[in-house]
Amino acid sequence: MGGAKHHPIFAILTDFGTRDHYAAAVKGVLLSACPNAQIVDISHDVSPQNIIGGAYILGSAYAYMPEGTVHIAVVDPGVGSSRRPLAACAGKWLFVAPDNGILGYVLSKERNWRAYAIEPESVAAGQISRTFHGRDLFAPAAAKLALGAEPSDLGPQVEDPVFPENLFARVREGGISGEVIHTDRFGNLITNITESAFESWRGAKPLQDIVVSIGGVLLRGISGYYAEVPRGKPLVLFGSSGHLEVAVNQGSAADFFGVREGTPVLVEFAG
Amino acid sequence: MGGAKHHPIFAILTDFGTRDHYAAAVKGVLLSACPNAQIVDISHDVSPQNIIGGAYILGSAYAYMPEGTVHIAVVDPGVGSSRRPLAACAGKWLFVAPDNGILGYVLSKERNWRAYAIEPESVAAGQISRTFHGRDLFAPAAAKLALGAEPSDLGPQVEDPVFPENLFARVREGGISGEVIHTDRFGNLITNITESAFESWRGAKPLQDIVVSIGGVLLRGISGYYAEVPRGKPLVLFGSSGHLEVAVNQGSAADFFGVREGTPVLVEFAG
Amino acid sequence: MGGAKHHPIFAILTDFGTRDHYAAAVKGVLLSACPNAQIVDISHDVSPQNIIGGAYILGSAYAYMPEGTVHIAVVDPGVGSSRRPLAACAGKWLFVAPDNGILGYVLSKERNWRAYAIEPESVAAGQISRTFHGRDLFAPAAAKLALGAEPSDLGPQVEDPVFPENLFARVREGGISGEVIHTDRFGNLITNITESAFESWRGAKPLQDIVVSIGGVLLRGISGYYAEVPRGKPLVLFGSSGHLEVAVNQGSAADFFGVREGTPVLVEFAG
Repeated sequence: MGGAKHHPIFAILTDFGTRDHYAAAVKGVLLSACPNAQIVDISHDVSPQNIIGGAYILGSAYAYMPEGTVHIAVVDPGVGSSRRPLAACAGKWLFVAPDNGILGYVLSKERNWRAYAIEPESVAAGQISRTFHGRDLFAPAAAKLALGAEPSDLGPQVEDPVFPENLFARVREGGISGEVIHTDRFGNLITNITESAFESWRGAKPLQDIVVSIGGVLLRGISGYYAEVPRGKPLVLFGSSGHLEVAVNQGSAADFFGVREGTPVLVEFAG
Repeated sequence: MGGAKHHPIFAILTDFGTRDHYAAAVKGVLLSACPNAQIVDISHDVSPQNIIGGAYILGSAYAYMPEGTVHIAVVDPGVGSSRRPLAACAGKWLFVAPDNGILGYVLSKERNWRAYAIEPESVAAGQISRTFHGRDLFAPAAAKLALGAEPSDLGPQVEDPVFPENLFARVREGGISGEVIHTDRFGNLITNITESAFESWRGAKPLQDIVVSIGGVLLRGISGYYAEVPRGKPLVLFGSSGHLEVAVNQGSAADFFGVREGTPVLVEFAG
Repeated sequence: MGGAKHHPIFAILTDFGTRDHYAAAVKGVLLSACPNAQIVDISHDVSPQNIIGGAYILGSAYAYMPEGTVHIAVVDPGVGSSRRPLAACAGKWLFVAPDNGILGYVLSKERNWRAYAIEPESVAAGQISRTFHGRDLFAPAAAKLALGAEPSDLGPQVEDPVFPENLFARVREGGISGEVIHTDRFGNLITNITESAFESWRGAKPLQDIVVSIGGVLLRGISGYYAEVPRGKPLVLFGSSGHLEVAVNQGSAADFFGVREGTPVLVEFAG
């Protein structure tokens, strides 16, 4: 990394939606600085201001991007407040994002990271709006990184980036206490319970003795794929991103259970 | 075709939606193999698991892409089952897709096609997830094609790809019996009745003697464009893709008729 | 401008949505003519046939695109009628669009513009559909511009492009009478009252004496950023695009006020 890239790749994750000009303005700033850039939309449809949901999508996607990709992650309810803007390197990738936990899963997976607090004057010549740091601060910072700057060129090191309390489920001997952090397109309910935490906790006990409770319903056992249960029936499995999810075969678990982000999910051994 | 392309073009059609990381993970795999690729989203908003609707969108879009474009079409309710993954060449384009009919309109329009069953070990070094073949199987296969492999390099030839029964309407002397296969953004109801089938059936009889029935309503005549009827009134016309559609001038036929995909549509001569 | 561009940039704004093949067909036409083009989606989710809303999004985004970008703006309820198709240069950018006001904010901001009525035979060899000029007329015209044609090569000059009456609010001594022209992703209600019109009208009077009425509610004062009011409370501010907007801190003003595009908004001095 570092050194000018002639065909830089940017990957963008926001809660800006796709109705408005917000994402396009970010892209315009990137292309004005790097006309040959490749820009990939990870998602602009993170639920508005859902930091953990955005962190989950970013954490599931970033590692598929080529080495050196500059990730721009802007779910930023604190824009205009004193929250720090970060530039970071983690693993083989670069990141710019508000310091609010949106990088939580990335920094948890990549041991080898460093983060820096972007000083606005290091990236933007003109005035920075109070409401649109994606365009005025993070996009110029990302372009600087793509053009060869190191994250450390943009500001002082940050040793204590924000890791939200509900980034990971609480594991006790008696069970795992997590919550729904994201509802995907198919209505699958993604939780903050990771497969590695689950496996450490479970040890040698059989999968069919696991009971998962959500929205007042108990589900027994962990499935391997959706079609293991009849159409329309609920199941629990670890999705392709390594998070425990509650699903309905060929249906929507969000509709089935009537729950959304924030709903508690408990994993226990059957009595 | 064949021979390495330095700037390959990929076109992607899925029912993954745009909220999640699914489409981005596919793109990341493509860009990791082909950093200079051009990636076009045809649509990620096919109704979940609506194979015929996806086939319609693909069939309406593929031929506008440049020669040599590698199309990736993943609407895949049977993922994890024994349905075959296909690599195909058809006309001037290449395709990877599950063998479930999603290529139906393409293979019907292009006489000159060959299809092959992708052998997973020919495209993926590591483990293939049970739930995400778009990322783990179809994207690597598409990248192989873009880098110069022939579809026949990926597995044995398939002579009998799936053509779903409702891909085309049933034509009898007395009338054409079709169904709604896609509801577009404007609420237009697209059917599986093609203009060529209609014209063969109609022969020399006048357009104003045609009666179309849908949702208990009879519509007389075939219009040339939306504004031929007053605002808010329904009409029948052949859309820009050559399929019969039921529309409402400056309104939504889906709302007007209260129908969706699967609703029967009958075309007959007026008594 | 003019002179062939080897890596042209196209920016597309439509009300086509993202479910269907419409936007992809436009992109396919562009890439077939210009395989190395960079294509940016400004938005495809303009409310169907909402010309002023589309004009607002275009007016907020176009200037962030690199010099020479060819903008394609197709919100086109009059397709198939006699409305003129335009090719224009304005500031550092090129535009193709129907002559219905969608370029209104662009041509108001850029003094230095010229517009021409595209003659279909100058851009398309084959037949042009009656319902899909985005694909059959505007995309080929945009490709011609990207390949070096001047807008004046495409048809005769137009001195009187359409400027819709409600493009700008009416300013009288007693107050400004505008309307909601766009509801953004967050439910913010964007109006056709611009900051420059407001400041000319306000003169030296203090911001806290301004009263804004919308949907039967009076809001006092103009805020600088969302968090100036408690969570869930409404406020008025000038957004990052320089239009007056009514917002709710961490909430949706569209839901709060129960209003949408077209609702009147009055700005007056407090009695």
